[in-house]
Amino acid sequence: MQEIKDYLSENASRFEQELIEFLKIPTISADSKYQADVIRGAEFVRKQLADIGFDAETIETEGYPIVFGSWEGVPGAPTVLVYGHYDVQPPDPLDQWISPPFEPEIREGKVYARGATDDKGQMFTHIKSVEAWLKTTGRLPVNVKFVIEGEEEVGSENLDRFLEANRKKVRSDVAVISDTSQYAPGLPAITYGLRGILAAEIRLTGPDRDLHSGMFGGSVANPANVLASLVASLHNEQGRVQIPGFYDAVVELTQEEREGFAKLPFDEAAALGKIGVEDPQGEAGFSTLERRWARPTCDVNGLVSGYTGEGPKTIVPSTATAKISCRLVPDQNPRELTESLERFLADQIPPGIRFEFIDYHGCEAIVFTTESRFMSAAKGAIEAAFGTTPVMIREGGSIPVVGTFRDVLGIDTLLLGWGQNTDNLHSPNEHFSIDDFHRGTNASAHLWQLLADGSPT
Amino acid sequence: MQEIKDYLSENASRFEQELIEFLKIPTISADSKYQADVIRGAEFVRKQLADIGFDAETIETEGYPIVFGSWEGVPGAPTVLVYGHYDVQPPDPLDQWISPPFEPEIREGKVYARGATDDKGQMFTHIKSVEAWLKTTGRLPVNVKFVIEGEEEVGSENLDRFLEANRKKVRSDVAVISDTSQYAPGLPAITYGLRGILAAEIRLTGPDRDLHSGMFGGSVANPANVLASLVASLHNEQGRVQIPGFYDAVVELTQEEREGFAKLPFDEAAALGKIGVEDPQGEAGFSTLERRWARPTCDVNGLVSGYTGEGPKTIVPSTATAKISCRLVPDQNPRELTESLERFLADQIPPGIRFEFIDYHGCEAIVFTTESRFMSAAKGAIEAAFGTTPVMIREGGSIPVVGTFRDVLGIDTLLLGWGQNTDNLHSPNEHFSIDDFHRGTNASAHLWQLLADGSPT
Repeated sequence: MQEIKDYLSENASRFEQELIEFLKIPTISADSKYQADVIRGAEFVRKQLADIGFDAETIETEGYPIVFGSWEGVPGAPTVLVYGHYDVQPPDPLDQWISPPFEPEIREGKVYARGATDDKGQMFTHIKSVEAWLKTTGRLPVNVKFVIEGEEEVGSENLDRFLEANRKKVRSDVAVISDTSQYAPGLPAITYGLRGILAAEIRLTGPDRDLHSGMFGGSVANPANVLASLVASLHNEQGRVQIPGFYDAVVELTQEEREGFAKLPFDEAAALGKIGVEDPQGEAGFSTLERRWARPTCDVNGLVSGYTGEGPKTIVPSTATAKISCRLVPDQNPRELTESLERFLADQIPPGIRFEFIDYHGCEAIVFTTESRFMSAAKGAIEAAFGTTPVMIREGGSIPVVGTFRDVLGIDTLLLGWGQNTDNLHSPNEHFSIDDFHRGTNASAHLWQLLADGSPT
Repeated sequence: MQEIKDYLSENASRFEQELIEFLKIPTISADSKYQADVIRGAEFVRKQLADIGFDAETIETEGYPIVFGSWEGVPGAPTVLVYGHYDVQPPDPLDQWISPPFEPEIREGKVYARGATDDKGQMFTHIKSVEAWLKTTGRLPVNVKFVIEGEEEVGSENLDRFLEANRKKVRSDVAVISDTSQYAPGLPAITYGLRGILAAEIRLTGPDRDLHSGMFGGSVANPANVLASLVASLHNEQGRVQIPGFYDAVVELTQEEREGFAKLPFDEAAALGKIGVEDPQGEAGFSTLERRWARPTCDVNGLVSGYTGEGPKTIVPSTATAKISCRLVPDQNPRELTESLERFLADQIPPGIRFEFIDYHGCEAIVFTTESRFMSAAKGAIEAAFGTTPVMIREGGSIPVVGTFRDVLGIDTLLLGWGQNTDNLHSPNEHFSIDDFHRGTNASAHLWQLLADGSPT
């Protein structure tokens, strides 16, 4: 390993430069006007893998291409599937970025850019660690396959189809994903549970144009008022979601898990202070970590209706739209609950309002056993690179592909986050610590060895 | 009168061209980036009056200038105050206009442009009618003062101050405003009642940035969900407004008025069909005309929060904003009810959310006696120009200055609408019938004579 560690040190600065080039590409999958850039992002990843010596290709889909790369030089050794995504969230609101989202800037040891941590920076560690092995020893201890997609931020629909159609090509023994976070600076973590999600858009139409609120107000249904009633009906006063059947399948936390969460260092006031919030809120009877990691939610992600410019404008709007998403926990079924949500809303639509419901995507929540040889290898790799034992945590976010790996390939996933949960992913000024980037690359390099033989080197 | 009527016919086409020049100026008072254009609009009006022979000036205010013009050539005769406004509503949504809002186009006998009917086109009829009198007879039968403001669409705050500070300058016996509508094509109307208004904006702030809804969702108050609850709380299931004290001062309709409204020709299905609505909605127990003219309302005019672009974005938004306005009836007090609204909302704000309330403007509703010599003169003028007796109606909109004329100058206002309530005022494709424009100019020319001597000529 020393030779590999030396290579990582000697090439650290070049790795940073290459990451910056990657971050400059605005791979915004949700906005079709960035189509050419997203495709350029795929090609960047393919070339990285090909240059290292992987068989690498970009595979067309009905959406954005999937980059597939493989190195299978040790028959009989385990095969590891590295998953990541080269697409990023939209950068809005743009005016809150200190440096532009696609002009990466290093400030105080962190690289600032959209995608710095989610997921370009974290995913890139695995590319650089296989490079280190191949450039120094000419081999890897295990077989490695990369599946890097470009539609993670918009539901990964084509990825699922690709995996189902290419079971043999992607067949592996375990998956590795770095798209989560450490628990805290200096406290690396393995994430053994993820929330699921369902996401939808509600579109209401009343009159076929915006109307003068004096001439017509009070005599026609106002879609913005109706939308507000629909959204308000999603919760009761205790913060419980009111979609019929929402809690029926929820697996409650065990006493052991609740105690485990409670033992983690967590300065609630400081954590909230960092996001400008004074008081926690949520479902009654649960702690903040429980609410984030193990309780289901229903949040509005966006609202728009009528006049939103400066000053007043006295109209009855023609349309009103809400984007809504629910975070789910085991064993809630996103498909059933999306249908229940649609029916629940449709039943409330008054005469004079047309209702449209757009089902964006959904995935189940997942929780893994913490006792497996793959988990042990991951713990060892993190200990070697970070100098401390990782804590076992759950995550509030969703990584839909983890469920697909379980259901389609029958494998578990190691969720090894190198970033921090304060890295502003999905927010302005997203960033990634340069030190975490290098420690992650180091841990990844150890991981290949430990997955092969189970013992540290 | 024949000489005057001939002048109006001979100059009809020039009048249309001048109106089109006026409509080309984007005098959007709500949006500060049109400041120079709004001021250009004021100058256009001043020059029109000056060219006719009025003493005309633009009077600076803290906002947009007020155009004041006077002709006082018949001492002892009544003095008539013509009020109008040269500012217009914002044209959004722009993509729904068939021809651009500030490139007036005549199609099928109607001029299409923002401000065509509200209020440039209607107001312009009075300028052209005094021109006709002065250019043919060298005099007017009454003294006439014009007060044309540029802030009607944003609350007329400086107008009120101007009127209060210049009581002597603007002193008159009756006011005339053409900023309402005919009841229907071929059925001109005198409007004897107007609703009042209060308008406000609610701004909620939760976290200081948009957050990842997976990492944070369920553990912090979501301002968009809270906003929806606030808006939903404004009505009960019967469509009754829930602001405390809202109905306390409401003067109920008399049996006579309800019967009068019921007798007016009104094809509800056709009226709703024109705005793309199948079913009327509103306060239980009232007809559509009652709801529009004589019942108070509370409508959302605009909503915005979080991500409003294409596709999903799973965030907890940092802020959520709603523009809200209530239409009021006699004797509701806009100031008291604005305060009640603010308290009502403030009391519902949960921990973790910051609440801001912006009070835009308010005015009282007003109802005039239909038995006065001024009303008789107006009826006669309309009969002479339109060939039919006007119906007496109320209006759902607000013209705040009418209350100021009553309170500050002690005078009644004749609300003489030449346009149609289907002219799309405040909506895309606002328009004004060229025939209505000329009939209005004609009626205005008759009005000066009838206000002077009470008998038709």
